[in-house]
Parts: sequence; C-alpha cells; structure tokens
Amino acid sequence: MSDQPDCLDTTEERTWDAAVLAFRLLDQRVEHDLQEEVGLPLTYYELLVMLSKDPHGSLRMSELAERTHTRPSRISHAVRKLTEGGWVERRHCEDDRRSWFAVLTDQGRELLRDAGARHVRSMREYVFDVLTPEQRDQLLDISRTLLGRLDPDHAAEYGARVRSGPQEASA
Amino acid sequence: MSDQPDCLDTTEERTWDAAVLAFRLLDQRVEHDLQEEVGLPLTYYELLVMLSKDPHGSLRMSELAERTHTRPSRISHAVRKLTEGGWVERRHCEDDRRSWFAVLTDQGRELLRDAGARHVRSMREYVFDVLTPEQRDQLLDISRTLLGRLDPDHAAEYGARVRSGPQEASA
Repeated sequence: MSDQPDCLDTTEERTWDAAVLAFRLLDQRVEHDLQEEVGLPLTYYELLVMLSKDPHGSLRMSELAERTHTRPSRISHAVRKLTEGGWVERRHCEDDRRSWFAVLTDQGRELLRDAGARHVRSMREYVFDVLTPEQRDQLLDISRTLLGRLDPDHAAEYGARVRSGPQEASA
Repeated sequence: MSDQPDCLDTTEERTWDAAVLAFRLLDQRVEHDLQEEVGLPLTYYELLVMLSKDPHGSLRMSELAERTHTRPSRISHAVRKLTEGGWVERRHCEDDRRSWFAVLTDQGRELLRDAGARHVRSMREYVFDVLTPEQRDQLLDISRTLLGRLDPDHAAEYGARVRSGPQEASA
C-alpha cells in the first residue's frame, strides 16, 4: 500500500502494530489469569467492579451498557450469568417498571475481593513492573489524549482534554 | 480494595483505566469504520494484511493462528468465511497433506486496497492526528516495553527489548 498517496510512514505503522498488539495481549493475559484463578471472564469482573463503585452497589442495566461501551444485549446476557452465580441480583426500578437494576450481592463482593487481588497482580506483572514511572505518566497522558478524540462526551471523566490535534489545528 | 496491602496507587489505577478503555474503543471504532465501508470485520482484514505481506500471499493456517495470537478454530472459521467471499483460497500443503495453506486471491488483493485506504484514514483520525510526534515515539517505546514482557518469544520482531523491569531488577 506504500504506493498510495494516503499511507502511514514506517514509524506510524510500527507504532500502530506494536500498540494494538500489546493492548490486545494485555487483555488476553489478564483474562486468562482471572479465569484460571477465580473462573471469571474479564468483562464480568469489570461489571462487578463497576457495581462496587456505586454507593448502593447497583446500576441500571442501560447505564452498565453505556459505561462499558457494550451492547445492551451483551450486558443482559452477562448479568443473567452473574445472577446464576449468585453474585448479582436483578431488581425492578421503582419509578419505571420497564427498567432493571443490577445489584451486587454479598457473595459478589466476596468474589470481587479474590478477583481484585488477582487483577492487581496481573496489572503489576504486565504493566507497572515493566514501565518506568515516566513511561507510566506518558501512557496516562497518551490515553487521555486518545480518549478525548474517541469518546469526547465522557472525556472530562478520564481527565482528558478534547482537542483537535496538531494537524487539524494548523489546517 | 484500597484497604488491601497489594493495591494500585491512584495514578496507576487511572493509567490502567484510561489505557485499557482507549485501546478497546480504538479497536471498536476501526472495526466499525471497516464494516461500514467495506463490510469486513477487523480480524478478517488483519488476516488479509498478513497474507499480503508474504511474498507468495500464502501462509500455513497454523502460522496465521500463531501470528495473530488466535485459537486455530477461530482462524479456520475466519478463513472459511474469507473463502466464501472469494478473497482467499485454501490449498493443501504439498509436503504435509494434513496441513492447509490460506492463499490470497486477486479479488482479496482488490478488497484489501479499499479496506487498507479506509484503515489508514481511521488510524490518522483516531491516533496520529491527535498525538504529537513526541507522544507517538513514547507510545512506540511503551508498547515495545510491554511486548517484551507479554510476548518475549517474539519481542525481537517488534524491536522490543526483553527486560525484567525496575522492580524485579532491584529485587
């Protein structure tokens, strides 16, 4: 494709290939560790974490879908599985009978403690033990910059500035 | 989890959350663009690119699985779909009748030109237009560092150094 007018230079290509692969492998490894130690898929773990951060341990299903950037049908499926495990309960919303809440159970909090400890070990092993503090700060800054473009509506939550970037700014 | 001895500090947590989300969203956007413009899932596109980089446009199925870090059954499924589209042919390996090669067809190369152009536009829009050249270099360095830990067997291919990282080195 190098004969096309709109192509990437070698550094850009290398950066893309390395970054995309690194973060996919990271997801795979973290998932593998969680599955092996507590038998929990990563997406389920992340739903439990999200619920645990709410003061009441409960979130509307539609909110879970939005926050995780996941299709509502996938969230329904995941919550059904988590309900079968006894880690989550589904409750009707009092104001709106068509809406459902997912509520973290005590058993869910217990599972989360084990899973959380494993998750922290994985994060250390694959990321924070290998990056220098300077690289960690750079990664945070880079990720926030990308989120400012990829998800401008929620950019403030990540501490991201929404900016048009060097090329557009000068255009 | 902040009352547990082994936990992440706030900067680490923010870095993790932002980075993981940014790269997942990136995959989602790039996939969406490709689907919309050429009706091709990202994983299929990446298989075609991989084949196109081989001088003969062909790779053993097992090699495809290894290089994409994907289960062989998923590769078989993807190649079957690509075969149905006329973009890839499956051929027996002459030396070993149990092995199969996936071979890129002319039609596949044509599709790849359209898909490649769209892919480059997405990469520019979401990444290279928003990162400064300095951030791009940092991202390459960070990704190679992570790959050195996540995939040491192939680290040299990405230009990654395999290193144990600051914590282990001082332990």
